[in-house]
Amino acid sequence: MGDEIQPPADQLAAVSLSSDAASSSTVKKERFSDRVLVKSILGRPDGGAGLSGQKVRISGRVKTGREQGKGTFAFLEVNDGSCLVNLQVMVDASVYDLSKLVPTGTSVVVDGYLKIPPEGKRTKQKIELSVEKVVFVGTVDKDYPIHKTDLSLKYLRDYTHLRSRTNLFAAVESIRDELEKATHGFFGEEDFLKIRTPIITTSDCEGAGEMFQVTTLMSKPVLPVKDGRIDYSQDFFGRKAFLTVSGQLQLEISACSHRSAYTFGPTFRAENSHTSRHLAEFSMVEAELTEADLEDDMNCAEAYVKYMCEWLLEKCDDAMEFMAKNADEGCIERLKSVAMTPFERVTYTEAIELLEKAVSQGKVFENHVEWGIDLASEHERYLTEVVFQKPVVVYNYPKGIKAFYMRVNDDGKTVAAMDVLVPKVGELIGGSQREERYEVIKERMEEMGLPTEPYEWYLDLRRLGTVKHSGFGLGFERMVLFVTGMDNIRDVTPFPRYPGRADL
Amino acid sequence: MGDEIQPPADQLAAVSLSSDAASSSTVKKERFSDRVLVKSILGRPDGGAGLSGQKVRISGRVKTGREQGKGTFAFLEVNDGSCLVNLQVMVDASVYDLSKLVPTGTSVVVDGYLKIPPEGKRTKQKIELSVEKVVFVGTVDKDYPIHKTDLSLKYLRDYTHLRSRTNLFAAVESIRDELEKATHGFFGEEDFLKIRTPIITTSDCEGAGEMFQVTTLMSKPVLPVKDGRIDYSQDFFGRKAFLTVSGQLQLEISACSHRSAYTFGPTFRAENSHTSRHLAEFSMVEAELTEADLEDDMNCAEAYVKYMCEWLLEKCDDAMEFMAKNADEGCIERLKSVAMTPFERVTYTEAIELLEKAVSQGKVFENHVEWGIDLASEHERYLTEVVFQKPVVVYNYPKGIKAFYMRVNDDGKTVAAMDVLVPKVGELIGGSQREERYEVIKERMEEMGLPTEPYEWYLDLRRLGTVKHSGFGLGFERMVLFVTGMDNIRDVTPFPRYPGRADL
Repeated sequence: MGDEIQPPADQLAAVSLSSDAASSSTVKKERFSDRVLVKSILGRPDGGAGLSGQKVRISGRVKTGREQGKGTFAFLEVNDGSCLVNLQVMVDASVYDLSKLVPTGTSVVVDGYLKIPPEGKRTKQKIELSVEKVVFVGTVDKDYPIHKTDLSLKYLRDYTHLRSRTNLFAAVESIRDELEKATHGFFGEEDFLKIRTPIITTSDCEGAGEMFQVTTLMSKPVLPVKDGRIDYSQDFFGRKAFLTVSGQLQLEISACSHRSAYTFGPTFRAENSHTSRHLAEFSMVEAELTEADLEDDMNCAEAYVKYMCEWLLEKCDDAMEFMAKNADEGCIERLKSVAMTPFERVTYTEAIELLEKAVSQGKVFENHVEWGIDLASEHERYLTEVVFQKPVVVYNYPKGIKAFYMRVNDDGKTVAAMDVLVPKVGELIGGSQREERYEVIKERMEEMGLPTEPYEWYLDLRRLGTVKHSGFGLGFERMVLFVTGMDNIRDVTPFPRYPGRADL
Repeated sequence: MGDEIQPPADQLAAVSLSSDAASSSTVKKERFSDRVLVKSILGRPDGGAGLSGQKVRISGRVKTGREQGKGTFAFLEVNDGSCLVNLQVMVDASVYDLSKLVPTGTSVVVDGYLKIPPEGKRTKQKIELSVEKVVFVGTVDKDYPIHKTDLSLKYLRDYTHLRSRTNLFAAVESIRDELEKATHGFFGEEDFLKIRTPIITTSDCEGAGEMFQVTTLMSKPVLPVKDGRIDYSQDFFGRKAFLTVSGQLQLEISACSHRSAYTFGPTFRAENSHTSRHLAEFSMVEAELTEADLEDDMNCAEAYVKYMCEWLLEKCDDAMEFMAKNADEGCIERLKSVAMTPFERVTYTEAIELLEKAVSQGKVFENHVEWGIDLASEHERYLTEVVFQKPVVVYNYPKGIKAFYMRVNDDGKTVAAMDVLVPKVGELIGGSQREERYEVIKERMEEMGLPTEPYEWYLDLRRLGTVKHSGFGLGFERMVLFVTGMDNIRDVTPFPRYPGRADL
């Protein structure tokens, strides 16, 4: 899918619906409002036909409206966000001033009767609404910025407060929501404790990336200075504080209490990245498994990704079908394939051999390939997209390119680290078995020139009854990209933050 | 409960367990490790007796250990975090050096056979483990800071990386986890969309509180200055950015797309509060309901709180019983009462009359009572704890003390705002019907001297097809305080942040 086209709303009419709507012959209104959700009408197995004759209140937004019969009545395609399909609503000119209802974007609340449209008529729907009373109208000014249906994604990024009204963004939001539900479902079933790791931190997860500083000093007329430096003892927390780059280290506390745990939190990178894969604020799902080695860790990561794919196939077929029609033809097949096929597993050393073989056969990479390099994105994508054409787990990386907390393997050269690479996205998950041996981790920190003082608490977890454990982190927005087939990470989170932009 | 006592572990022996453990005669190991959870043994209806003879691997921490029979064997009380009850583990001196196993805090992995203890013996448990092999031992240094069981909560706040090993903190964490599950359960059942509202924001939710600034400028050698002021055009986002104080305004975007939504996010206040009710970083559950007025909003807030109480009663009886025994005797009765009794609802005007009546009868408040004041915490607690002795919803507050976005009532004096007050805590929830009328909200912003420029996007939601909607926010840590009976908010979040403290 290119970056330009937002598909027209009427491509949606035939999209099927996933819904738990009952098949009873009475409508069910929302519990905390007087309206009935369109999903609970059109999502029924009978397409709503069995509700003919029922009186309902509908609230929604006019996607398209047109006056007909020389202005004696109007048809409105009304969307209420509960599903991607619109309800066809018929209003007679005797009921309301039609010119106020038809503009795209108008918000309406209407009471009326459901009825089966006359045979052979212009709708594919089994039921439409004949309006008895217009309860409320929220008009749109003429400058409504999203009145057209062929707006580019780039254009819509300037309207983050309105773009969720489009079908594409509504579909992506639903899929994101279901992926989050699947995450809680998976870790709940496996009995992991959900832990609230901190957002403001005074620990640095080993330079995982540039950090944002959190301060109240800049609101003072003059920054406090001591010995020629900013005096952080006067800052809110009495010392320098940052936005977290990872909840891993704190999550290990739980794993070391023998309770496997996960966290689903915002994480931050103050990096000047302008790519379609990076955000300054994003979401990570991080898990730490007690009494688990690297293989257990890989098994868990793979099972989690498969679980999410299965979940979407089961719960999200209308939104996924929409994405297949409008964004990425192969996205449903990809879900099925990921859910059913075992991931490939290769050591880093094997991966390098595969890349070197490709180079010897004429493949050109921008970055040189040899044992010891950190795999570049082009290498990762070549492995998953060209060599294996499915998700690949690469494990046992050279010690020199990995973090101090990863467990040193018996060969002394590699660490028990793993990355899950997937087509379209590259690295989706990174993880490792954690070094649980106090002497080994201390020596490694010294080797790497890391100060031990800020990590005393972390070392305590090894010194005071250490526990074997492993963990991983999944970039949640990358998972949304992977399943939806969207191209730009700025379009799969409602309020993207990147250099120069933090709208709203 | 005072701030001093952490209850001894052995008070737990008789605590009942909630568990889905099967009653089959084979044990079920964890999916991503080789161990069997203690919960899946002791949590069975038969207390584990039916598993006698089974071989299992257990990993956990020694709560207490003692050598017996002149050092020929040892009994270890082992906890693995899956439940509050320990498994009794028997090790023979021929199997391992017992002196290495018995210190409190030692981490062990053992293989052994489950067996029914001899009748009349020292355990209340139906089953114990007889160790065949000690697979792994993580020893503790002599300075283990939580080797005693009568440590004060204040002392434990200096050991946030170790306190989750105590029963009290494990119980609170379980309850917190279940409250979060209940939250997703409730809003999922009501078909609310979960939205990821931003953490870094350039909007201010109408001065809900002092904000933390987020910046990369302070890492530069010299702050960039233009016209005598800090030049924020050179900051990461090209302008001043903050940590969010509320996701409400952004969540309204979804409600105005006709989709009721909720968010569960970290929120921040840079206030110099040293009370037992305030944190600098906390969690808020915020909901926005489409096509809902204030009464719908109150109904939803009440139903949500009741749902959480019912959930805990159903899923969390071991942790709740622990709290009842060790922290707050009445906590289970309180849950039952809140789940079953309708909340009282009074207007602000009625509330003031009740308070004035109390004053006339001799009750002394620190803060003067008259129509127009913002209720102080002492007033709120008097209403909920003394007058009604149950949760109270106070609604229709004076316009002058409330935010610009709250809907002005027909009387012109009050707004459609509501607060839910509960015993022990005071304000648990704040909410309102939002002002959906463009002209009214604009006039009100002018009245209050608010600049409209930063809120243009928010005004767009009223100008471009406005929608009736209402919402509320619940302070999640306050809910944990309310249900657990804990006294200090710093003890119900794993990593508390407050002035001067952001450990780890």
